Amino acid sequence: MNQVEVCFSPPLFEQFAKPNCIVVVVDIFRATSAMVTAFHYGAKSFIPVSTIEEAKELGKQGFLAGGERNGEVVEGFEFGNSPFSYMNENIRGREIALTTTNGTRAINIAAKGADTVLIGSFLNLQSLADHLKMQGKDVVIFCAGWKDRFNMEDSLFAGALTNLLLNSGKFYSDCDSANASSLVYRTGRKNLMSFLKSCSHRKRLAHLKLEKDVEYCLQRDITDVIPVLKDGKLVRL
Amino acid sequence: MNQVEVCFSPPLFEQFAKPNCIVVVVDIFRATSAMVTAFHYGAKSFIPVSTIEEAKELGKQGFLAGGERNGEVVEGFEFGNSPFSYMNENIRGREIALTTTNGTRAINIAAKGADTVLIGSFLNLQSLADHLKMQGKDVVIFCAGWKDRFNMEDSLFAGALTNLLLNSGKFYSDCDSANASSLVYRTGRKNLMSFLKSCSHRKRLAHLKLEKDVEYCLQRDITDVIPVLKDGKLVRL
Repeated sequence: MNQVEVCFSPPLFEQFAKPNCIVVVVDIFRATSAMVTAFHYGAKSFIPVSTIEEAKELGKQGFLAGGERNGEVVEGFEFGNSPFSYMNENIRGREIALTTTNGTRAINIAAKGADTVLIGSFLNLQSLADHLKMQGKDVVIFCAGWKDRFNMEDSLFAGALTNLLLNSGKFYSDCDSANASSLVYRTGRKNLMSFLKSCSHRKRLAHLKLEKDVEYCLQRDITDVIPVLKDGKLVRL
Repeated sequence: MNQVEVCFSPPLFEQFAKPNCIVVVVDIFRATSAMVTAFHYGAKSFIPVSTIEEAKELGKQGFLAGGERNGEVVEGFEFGNSPFSYMNENIRGREIALTTTNGTRAINIAAKGADTVLIGSFLNLQSLADHLKMQGKDVVIFCAGWKDRFNMEDSLFAGALTNLLLNSGKFYSDCDSANASSLVYRTGRKNLMSFLKSCSHRKRLAHLKLEKDVEYCLQRDITDVIPVLKDGKLVRL
């Protein structure tokens, strides 16, 4: 039996880092949903970078460059973290340098404390769960959160993945965060959108002005791609 | 309207600290439950200290000295954080220096980021809620957690207090942690003990070997005392 644990926010990750575990990074609105989408549409790789300067520098070197802060595309960048911006032919075979408020930072933190870093979203949930069940390793679901705070959408995803792993009979959990996430998901699963509207940070969601993005990111299992971090780059597993 | 927010763990508190707010520190198993009990039995004050050495030094100066690490009384101390150890005549009028694994550390962190620090537990929940409703200030419920991790019992309390404040009509919340806590509490409220047994860290609770303490700490409203931090000392409000 392997353990599944949930880390609610980057400043807590230190407590979860351990050798030989698989970390699944999730930033539902919208970095990891966008990455999964880009791979589904044929992107070759993502380099998650922490600063806008790094992304700009890589842009000069021929990468497509994406930059998002506080939910908005940063001036001078072609992409932010809207999944829709990656749904086009131009990204096929391209390498993309991306910096976002929460997601890419969490990926870089995870890289320092894990054997393997995978990217999760509702869009590739089942395929990710099926993969994890075959690995025989402990799993940490690492919620990127919002500016170091717990957020509802990432923990909903954490609960959904926790449930799939626990139900396989190959995992257990002694982690209170995993159990709380599972409970949150069981409460909200019937209608994720209305659940989030009723109990998530209203201004933050409204600020995204992105009902369309939010609806898209809450869809389950539209692809089987699983991005994995290899030598600082996310590639398709 | 004032806001109620919930901080799940000490490393996240920095995001919640703000001037002119009231912070309620909670460590249900068992530091804050023990403190509330001690005041109910007549203790004069608590000095929350971070290290065992500080507690020992104050012990030499005439304070009663308490020390707990990992759920056990530290050798050489009269008290740990079992509420039952404070239910006796010897503590009436006494000043107590206490260091615990999670609770006293959270109190000292809170002291640096708040206008007022109060101590919460199920034992004084209603009286605390009634007091907060009268203050016209924002409230942050600060869960001490377990070694910097989220724990179920502190968030249950956070949910219970959040619900009382929201139901008063004097508070709102845009905080996802507050909403998640509230949901956890609504799920577990009918039987907190069996809820915790089903979904909390089994080894940690068993390690406490303290069914009696756990049952005691989950009782609601057995006292109206509210400890408050004044000049580094907890005293009765």
